[in-house]
Amino acid sequence: MGHLGKSVAQLSALIQTGALDPRQLAEETLDAIRTHADQSIFTVLTPERALAEADQSAKRLAEGRSLGILDGIPVAWKDLFDMEGLTTTAGSTVLAKNPPATTDAAIVTTLKQAGMIAVGRTNMSEFAFSGIGINPHYGTPKNPASTDVPRVPGGSSSGAGVSVAGGLVPVAMGTDTGGSIRIPAAFNGIVGYKGTRGRYAMDGVFPLATSLDALGPLCHTVQDAVWVDAAMRGRTSSEVVRGTLEGQSLVVPETVFFDGIEDGAAMAFEATLERLSRAGARIRRQAFPIFAQLFEIITERGALVTAEAYALHRERLHGEDARGMDPRVVSRSLTGQKITAPDYIHILQVRQRMIAEMARSVAPGDILVSPTLPHVAPTIESLLTDDAAFFAANGKTLRNTQIGNFLDWCGVSIPCGTGDAGMPVGCLLSGLPNTDEHLLSIAVAAEETVRG
Amino acid sequence: MGHLGKSVAQLSALIQTGALDPRQLAEETLDAIRTHADQSIFTVLTPERALAEADQSAKRLAEGRSLGILDGIPVAWKDLFDMEGLTTTAGSTVLAKNPPATTDAAIVTTLKQAGMIAVGRTNMSEFAFSGIGINPHYGTPKNPASTDVPRVPGGSSSGAGVSVAGGLVPVAMGTDTGGSIRIPAAFNGIVGYKGTRGRYAMDGVFPLATSLDALGPLCHTVQDAVWVDAAMRGRTSSEVVRGTLEGQSLVVPETVFFDGIEDGAAMAFEATLERLSRAGARIRRQAFPIFAQLFEIITERGALVTAEAYALHRERLHGEDARGMDPRVVSRSLTGQKITAPDYIHILQVRQRMIAEMARSVAPGDILVSPTLPHVAPTIESLLTDDAAFFAANGKTLRNTQIGNFLDWCGVSIPCGTGDAGMPVGCLLSGLPNTDEHLLSIAVAAEETVRG
Repeated sequence: MGHLGKSVAQLSALIQTGALDPRQLAEETLDAIRTHADQSIFTVLTPERALAEADQSAKRLAEGRSLGILDGIPVAWKDLFDMEGLTTTAGSTVLAKNPPATTDAAIVTTLKQAGMIAVGRTNMSEFAFSGIGINPHYGTPKNPASTDVPRVPGGSSSGAGVSVAGGLVPVAMGTDTGGSIRIPAAFNGIVGYKGTRGRYAMDGVFPLATSLDALGPLCHTVQDAVWVDAAMRGRTSSEVVRGTLEGQSLVVPETVFFDGIEDGAAMAFEATLERLSRAGARIRRQAFPIFAQLFEIITERGALVTAEAYALHRERLHGEDARGMDPRVVSRSLTGQKITAPDYIHILQVRQRMIAEMARSVAPGDILVSPTLPHVAPTIESLLTDDAAFFAANGKTLRNTQIGNFLDWCGVSIPCGTGDAGMPVGCLLSGLPNTDEHLLSIAVAAEETVRG
Repeated sequence: MGHLGKSVAQLSALIQTGALDPRQLAEETLDAIRTHADQSIFTVLTPERALAEADQSAKRLAEGRSLGILDGIPVAWKDLFDMEGLTTTAGSTVLAKNPPATTDAAIVTTLKQAGMIAVGRTNMSEFAFSGIGINPHYGTPKNPASTDVPRVPGGSSSGAGVSVAGGLVPVAMGTDTGGSIRIPAAFNGIVGYKGTRGRYAMDGVFPLATSLDALGPLCHTVQDAVWVDAAMRGRTSSEVVRGTLEGQSLVVPETVFFDGIEDGAAMAFEATLERLSRAGARIRRQAFPIFAQLFEIITERGALVTAEAYALHRERLHGEDARGMDPRVVSRSLTGQKITAPDYIHILQVRQRMIAEMARSVAPGDILVSPTLPHVAPTIESLLTDDAAFFAANGKTLRNTQIGNFLDWCGVSIPCGTGDAGMPVGCLLSGLPNTDEHLLSIAVAAEETVRG
């Protein structure tokens, strides 16, 4: 099992040189998942598909027809991406009666065409509707960074975060509507990249809230994310070139992001800023009143995500199925029922104004740097039965990252040390909409410094 | 005054050959508007601007630097396009206290750059919110096609329709959210072309409902519309080439469009179909159940236009301003208040499904042919004080055309004879979203036959 826990770069170097057979890697991966102590990380394994794809990869490589750096690399799919022949459950048992998908989601096809090996489907918050990652139906994957008391994996891409952090796969695909890629990445101490919404094809992806839903990989390094991003866009090489921290302007948002932050997380983040500054970056702290206004609007008018999720699940929420759903998902979705259309339209308009305001508030090329989360992963125990504690923790967990969803930022969370209880802390680099290439180029340059 | 009532083609032939001076044409136009018996067609004249632009045009032409076929051609702007130095009232007195616009709307600039002469602003339904064209604040332009009893002009681009039909300007720019270009074109016996939503820049256009708002010219011929369309897109020549009716598939929608149609309108339309058939077109009658479903959804859930208009005018509707507004606009806008966000989202999703369903229901290149309206222009008298009669007539007037807005069609209304009371009847040719070039190429070929 010597190949598990390796990055794409490490695995690919072995595969491309013939030192590692994709079939052997796929078998090792499947065995590791099957024998892992935590059986809630994956909901479904796809050994037949994986081995067939691995064999094809091996054949290509033997014949000198490598598809590139991702050929033969395992990937795990969050349980909301359609995969041919499997039912997409989106973390819910009420969808389990649905017929199997007849085709792969577009992005599944695209990564298959890049040579990646689909090994299975990862667990998630039901209907992607929480940042904590507790799932009462399929179990809650345990955060591998915690060695004593069980801690939450973060969500909604809970299995994705744990599958990578636990060394089972080098790449797990997530979705991010309020932080569902960046949160589990930060809680588990790995890299999570959310591309700007609209960057990738969404066909065959079970939605949460289409005005916010975005995709991206969880993986070990920013460079791995860069390769996966290029493949997700159907490219055989990436246009992202390594940038430089020297003279790079990094903007630290003073509004909202640090409210009620844990001491450990604050210290890890400040130490990161110090390292970045020493490495030549120009750090600027700046207030952004619109971040506070955003939460005022959510409080007064409602949230886009609940309006859209209610619209999506309306029949389910008022029917037989509601009894089979996580009551916390039901109650939170139902709040979307009362939002009026004019309020919804108003929020969308405010959103556009805030996006424009944001573009005026920073200079082109500026990168926002913030703590991904104001705390480390809480214990599962503390949130399992106490609804009030759960909703409070969920709100705080989603708080920083959802600003980026509302303002359509791209973002990448990079581990930046440890906080309370020795748990991982994430540093979030964010860029304005559709500046993904620049964000990634700076993130590649910053990664070593951020990790410290 | 011999040049009034002429088409763009006729005027341009004179201008380009030096037989007509743009300055003279502008003066004739301004004089004709000033001395017209109906002073409710224009809300504002812009003589200084018009004469300065005409002088520039004359200078260009004298120097052999013509900007093309529209150089020196007058255009009237609906009172919701920003024009530098003027307040945009959108047919409402409550906006009259607003400061003047500091720049032209993008599309105003674009047509100025094509050499067109802005002579003034045309009257409209308040906030573009009715298909009838009655305006209690600025007066109701009378339909020039009626020689005895005063009849409505159609709306919301009421002044636009009457200014062209009355021979005052060859081109008037309109907007169309539920039929506001095609309706006045049909009622007044001229051509009205609504481009697919998104075809032209919307900056500086006062909105009604942004998910439906579209632009286009009212003018004398389809060919004139083709030239204006090209200019609106910043092109000096059009990519539309004259098509042929021979073998062209024309689909007559049997659902909704003919319900309760007046005998005269039905006869004029059927005679038009007969002529089109003789000219080689292949006529196919087809049921479209989604058209009926669309109205069921509006009844059950609400209309996009009222939700979006309420969101836009909310403060106005609940404040001091409401007392200065047409009570019919107020009461209809207020219905948007009760629509829920999930219903609004549902309608938008149904819309996308119906657009996809529509694309499967017809073959590529098919053109839909229908009566623009199920009746000729009603008398003003019959709708002035009777609210129930007004709302009934307004609903029926908007019915056929709003299907095209909901399904994002492009459309051109062409006069096709007369109906009851000898009033004009319009034949509406419609194309699927973003098939404007094909629609216009067929409309150019069909125009003579449609007119009969």
